[in-house]
Amino acid sequence: MKTTELSVYDKLGALGIVLPPAGAAGGAYVMVAQTGNTLFLSGHIARRNGAVWAGKLGKELTTGDGIAAAHLVAIDLMATLHAHTGDLNIVKRIVKVMSLANSTTEFVEQHLVTNGASELFLQVFAESGPHARSAFGVAQIPFGGCVEIELIVELAVHS
Amino acid sequence: MKTTELSVYDKLGALGIVLPPAGAAGGAYVMVAQTGNTLFLSGHIARRNGAVWAGKLGKELTTGDGIAAAHLVAIDLMATLHAHTGDLNIVKRIVKVMSLANSTTEFVEQHLVTNGASELFLQVFAESGPHARSAFGVAQIPFGGCVEIELIVELAVHS
Amino acid sequence: MKTTELSVYDKLGALGIVLPPAGAAGGAYVMVAQTGNTLFLSGHIARRNGAVWAGKLGKELTTGDGIAAAHLVAIDLMATLHAHTGDLNIVKRIVKVMSLANSTTEFVEQHLVTNGASELFLQVFAESGPHARSAFGVAQIPFGGCVEIELIVELAVHS
Repeated sequence: MKTTELSVYDKLGALGIVLPPAGAAGGAYVMVAQTGNTLFLSGHIARRNGAVWAGKLGKELTTGDGIAAAHLVAIDLMATLHAHTGDLNIVKRIVKVMSLANSTTEFVEQHLVTNGASELFLQVFAESGPHARSAFGVAQIPFGGCVEIELIVELAVHS
Repeated sequence: MKTTELSVYDKLGALGIVLPPAGAAGGAYVMVAQTGNTLFLSGHIARRNGAVWAGKLGKELTTGDGIAAAHLVAIDLMATLHAHTGDLNIVKRIVKVMSLANSTTEFVEQHLVTNGASELFLQVFAESGPHARSAFGVAQIPFGGCVEIELIVELAVHS
Repeated sequence: MKTTELSVYDKLGALGIVLPPAGAAGGAYVMVAQTGNTLFLSGHIARRNGAVWAGKLGKELTTGDGIAAAHLVAIDLMATLHAHTGDLNIVKRIVKVMSLANSTTEFVEQHLVTNGASELFLQVFAESGPHARSAFGVAQIPFGGCVEIELIVELAVHS
């Protein structure tokens, strides 16, 4: 980080975001695997108030709900990143987002839902934030979650 | 590229393919992110005649339609690659394709649909073309698109 | 491999697992693509008794069926890895699993299904086994397969 730049934590603070404790894996896996300087973060399922945010876009949930859910997932992903790296400022690049929206067969606004995560990454990581992504609608998500997002991140140095 | 090899552009020309201008991202992301020599291309949604090709495989679209759509997506992916690299001949390897077909719960020919893209990569990139892939049917795709494909590519040199 | 460690093959033997011949790609692609020390394995579709194991979780198949199917896919993935590397002991890390369950719109136990693969990787690869993963439910899978899993693996040395 250049000394004239705001740190990632300053930006989170300015947005009023407090990172929660990193989540635990709900199965026989880990929340993040590192190979070289590349981190693969497991699919994080939307949670609020300490429980999975269940529901289907286009049925009981609106696009606005989905955007809010994706925003919350992005915060949880950053919590996992913080716990793994110890310093979010060593993120060189948010590389790729895969965003799954639990969708009816008619709901077609997965891109808007996913912007709830993508826009937060752009705000927080600035020039390190622009990422490739895929967004699509799936038949279901574990625990009935409404949104699931996985992430690939490049670090500037080995953590 | 060895001097005795046809360039990628010669092969495209022989196939009668003219690369369109690279598409723009439909949200808060970019169409390609590079880490080291590896490119991650965002999910590209099938378009024809300048608009999203919407529809569901097994409902209003046939397997043949899906193959044609995947072929068009592969052309758009190559346009993105060309815009990013400036020279498709520096592609060392088409590494992985993830291909999503907007499918009814009964349509089971996602592999045939995806061949519309895979076969074009084999034709154009020759020994650099064979790739790993996953193909499956999803509940929906942004804008109702019929096919969405994302791509991982390795370059021979930094672009 | 340290001399005091059991080899991957000893562990497979202790579990009574005999690796089958590696499967062939059902389309214009390959079962594994290598870039540097990283392997990308194509989505492997559940098979038993020499044929695709078709069916939908939450309809004609139970969570237990799905767990068994994911276990079989993990064995097939290891067969592909063995054929490609010649020695599974050079696996440095099972990096990431993407696991697709052919699901009704109501089935929400994709994480349990996927544990059928994840737990086998943990048993066989020990400290190299913990991986990131995403698991979700899709509308369909080629040939109607009940489970499809793709894998990213890091090798200790170039193979």
